Amino acid sequence: MFSGLSAFPLTPVNATGIDEKSFLSLLARLTTAKVDSLGVLGSTGSYAYFTREQRQRVASLAVQHADGIPVMVSIGATSTDEVLRLAEDAQHAGVSALLLPAVSYQKLTEEEVFGFYTEVARNVSLPICVYDNPGTTHTDFSNPLYARIAALSNIASIKIPGVPDEIASAKQRVNTLRAHLPDHIRIGVSGDAAAGNGLMAGCDVWFSVCGGLFPNTALLFTQAAQAGDFATVAAQSRRLEPLWALFRQHGGSIRVMSAAAAILGLADENNLPRPLRALSSEEQREVRQVIETLELS
Amino acid sequence: MFSGLSAFPLTPVNATGIDEKSFLSLLARLTTAKVDSLGVLGSTGSYAYFTREQRQRVASLAVQHADGIPVMVSIGATSTDEVLRLAEDAQHAGVSALLLPAVSYQKLTEEEVFGFYTEVARNVSLPICVYDNPGTTHTDFSNPLYARIAALSNIASIKIPGVPDEIASAKQRVNTLRAHLPDHIRIGVSGDAAAGNGLMAGCDVWFSVCGGLFPNTALLFTQAAQAGDFATVAAQSRRLEPLWALFRQHGGSIRVMSAAAAILGLADENNLPRPLRALSSEEQREVRQVIETLELS
Repeated sequence: MFSGLSAFPLTPVNATGIDEKSFLSLLARLTTAKVDSLGVLGSTGSYAYFTREQRQRVASLAVQHADGIPVMVSIGATSTDEVLRLAEDAQHAGVSALLLPAVSYQKLTEEEVFGFYTEVARNVSLPICVYDNPGTTHTDFSNPLYARIAALSNIASIKIPGVPDEIASAKQRVNTLRAHLPDHIRIGVSGDAAAGNGLMAGCDVWFSVCGGLFPNTALLFTQAAQAGDFATVAAQSRRLEPLWALFRQHGGSIRVMSAAAAILGLADENNLPRPLRALSSEEQREVRQVIETLELS
Repeated sequence: MFSGLSAFPLTPVNATGIDEKSFLSLLARLTTAKVDSLGVLGSTGSYAYFTREQRQRVASLAVQHADGIPVMVSIGATSTDEVLRLAEDAQHAGVSALLLPAVSYQKLTEEEVFGFYTEVARNVSLPICVYDNPGTTHTDFSNPLYARIAALSNIASIKIPGVPDEIASAKQRVNTLRAHLPDHIRIGVSGDAAAGNGLMAGCDVWFSVCGGLFPNTALLFTQAAQAGDFATVAAQSRRLEPLWALFRQHGGSIRVMSAAAAILGLADENNLPRPLRALSSEEQREVRQVIETLELS
């Protein structure tokens, strides 16, 4: 579950709710490309906008159509009670791992974050990936907090938000983190622009938004890293800079990937849960041009 | 609904869920003290941690036990669809107004925030109070955005997060905001430490956390402001500085008010929804001392 390319697809909606046909067409691209794992209902999969029932349905659909590829789903919510219910639902759906962010409304103290992971870890039977995404959850993890959480049972991986731009600093970041963690913990990098550096710095897995729609492009990248071909990784990451620039321009990757899915004919134009909105026509044209120029697939 | 003291009580929980007996005992303090309105299920009322069913139950209980005092409830959620369902529930429960924050997971663009308020305002029949609380929702409002939202039907009030410490700056802030708004929009100040300045600067209402547990203390303050007795307002605000200091020390007011409710024997020690936690015994002793020294009631 926690090596290579973990692809994080959108969960498209339409006027009546979750667009299951569209979701399955996205999944089919990923199973055909043979990504290493599926990260369903991640931030890009809009878990934070769906009801418990919708999340259970999407998790079940994903497991049924994953073609044997392991599926992880986010069980994030502000309330611990709700997280425990979502964990039970996800386990019933047959997923392979649980992605667990510390979503905050009131800013959480370090003891509250630790208490949260302790309680959830004690109540599940599947591997947990600790999801550190301060841009959306507004929860910060210090290295000592990572260490305390990683020592809990059922903790298998940590999804970090990125690594520094400079490769020496990126290596130092990953090495420092690794020194705080038990050996069995797998480190995954997200923030696609940082993925090249993250993989070259020794991360085990790329939790990839780009790979959720363009799995072949992302696999080239990941497989080069796994083969130790860092020249190719660096070149690919530079080549994809226009895509990373779009992500920066639009406050993250989700609106860009939403536009891309619509441009590919795989989802409605308005495929994000409201209040999120589709990019403007002009912005969509820019996304189309980047897809074509970079030959994303 | 939007003048004087609007008291925001906790929604205490116990080991089995919402502690209805405790919630009603808090409400009774507020109705006995005759606060001007009740802000149930605000941030202090932990709306962001409860299920739709729990929120509907609390709204109904509040209306039934409000003794004729108008009740406002928050209908905040990340998803517009969920907000519309919560609005319907709140209207069925018989509340008098809807408190509407723009809760974010993905950071919202200004157009998304405006689109959100437009859609909700079009679908409700009760007055809406726009809830600006960037510390929890991570949504920012510019004055022009306030102006666009305030021009929508059903918008009645804006709850601002505070005003500057210096009274001249506070007046300037309120005057500038007022110049952007139609005359019928009521401005409410929150962030209790800023309330004195806010009321003296011309805010119409104090959306008060302190007033949710210590209504007599808060009413003294508000009634002095309404009578134009600014010397008393300023003196009261200075007198309560040890309470404001506790709020700053504990990342906001909710954990302090939770401890205070337990100290008064009105709720269990662990009365916040997990992952939020009670203050430590030592911190609780400090809260007790402040309650006693300031004679909060």
